[in-house]
Amino acid sequence: MKNVKLIIEYDGTNYSGWQIQKNVITVEQVIEKSLNDITGENIKIIGSSRTDAGVHAKGFVGNFFTESKIPCDRFRNILNGKLPKDIVILNSEEVQLSFNSRFDSRGKTYSYTILSTPQRPAIGRNYVYHFRKNLDLGLILEASKEFIGTHDFAAFKSSGGNTKTTVRTISNLEIIKRDDYIIFTITGDGFLYNMVRIIIGTLIEVGLEKISPKNIKTILLSRNRNMAGPCVPPGGLCLEKVYY
Amino acid sequence: MKNVKLIIEYDGTNYSGWQIQKNVITVEQVIEKSLNDITGENIKIIGSSRTDAGVHAKGFVGNFFTESKIPCDRFRNILNGKLPKDIVILNSEEVQLSFNSRFDSRGKTYSYTILSTPQRPAIGRNYVYHFRKNLDLGLILEASKEFIGTHDFAAFKSSGGNTKTTVRTISNLEIIKRDDYIIFTITGDGFLYNMVRIIIGTLIEVGLEKISPKNIKTILLSRNRNMAGPCVPPGGLCLEKVYY
Repeated sequence: MKNVKLIIEYDGTNYSGWQIQKNVITVEQVIEKSLNDITGENIKIIGSSRTDAGVHAKGFVGNFFTESKIPCDRFRNILNGKLPKDIVILNSEEVQLSFNSRFDSRGKTYSYTILSTPQRPAIGRNYVYHFRKNLDLGLILEASKEFIGTHDFAAFKSSGGNTKTTVRTISNLEIIKRDDYIIFTITGDGFLYNMVRIIIGTLIEVGLEKISPKNIKTILLSRNRNMAGPCVPPGGLCLEKVYY
Repeated sequence: MKNVKLIIEYDGTNYSGWQIQKNVITVEQVIEKSLNDITGENIKIIGSSRTDAGVHAKGFVGNFFTESKIPCDRFRNILNGKLPKDIVILNSEEVQLSFNSRFDSRGKTYSYTILSTPQRPAIGRNYVYHFRKNLDLGLILEASKEFIGTHDFAAFKSSGGNTKTTVRTISNLEIIKRDDYIIFTITGDGFLYNMVRIIIGTLIEVGLEKISPKNIKTILLSRNRNMAGPCVPPGGLCLEKVYY
């Protein structure tokens, strides 16, 4: 038996997220279908994350076990020949049998992109959150620093996820403005359900002067979801990288 | 009667170009349908260009005549409320009755984007030409200068367009490399049928060392389409701006 690690890019626009669910199409389901066609086996991929509907990934990691004699590094090209245009395998390789893409993850980087133009975008509309109102980037930068470090992020978590602890460590939160785009890049040891999107929603409230940068600390300590900002839409979010 | 000028952005992926044709869906047709619903008239938009299937636009210009009492600057929001997500009106305004978006155009800027990665892209795949092979950017830059100025571009024109002359002036051709992207931006007083895509196809041949930068002059002088490079795919092309 071999353990194969995949690095996967996908455009999440037309999928109900990564994980298999009834009555909807997910990325996991589409890749497993191709794998089963190729191997004749009944393969289940272990995924590094559960991305939501409409969320994208440039470096999703998954692994699966197979008895197939296909060389592990060949799965990339064979799968790419079968997968639809919005999913692509960037790499496939054999890893130790003990490797588990979910539990061995030491951290992840996500990006979130806001487009600030007077009219909604047509080109690239599925990859950004279009936000018309003017944002004070200085305030956003100031507030963003409050998230760095180890905190209880209970206030920045949607109900529904089940985790033992709501304590997470954010090691980096960068914000770049390029033309009409504001790109947030956030790295942490792990993220609670909707945590990135609620952090961005809170930073937007800061940029609108509805929340003061000084209040981020209070919101974290409150552990109260109602104190934080809204969960922003999924299209702007992209899982960039998973660390092992 | 009023003459209304529109600036239009569209994602051309799902359209057979701008201009109305039988049995296919075009951008012109979709906007005219909305205009007719709004005004109760039978409106025909004069377009600045005939973009091909799959080509995008960030600054397409069109104009139409109407007897409607709707203020000209209101057409933007009314149309945007009706148009599909891949078409958006960036501006609408009244212009002189003599204004013709096609014949009054003094020049246009197009961009063309190449993505150079080992695997095909999933995210943003409709907006780039994915090209795996390594390109010598120094040679491309050298060759690009040969296009600047007034030349007979007959060798860089697909058959089918009908124009009085094949002489055009290119005032600018910039090439930027950003991460894995190569972005060409080309400005001229007008472009022949497929001219931008054949120029880019020729520059790619230069980057592959199949055509020498010195040979561009010879190809121009030959007026022979077979001497130039191939016409690259439409998805990488975007009409950025039309000048009046």
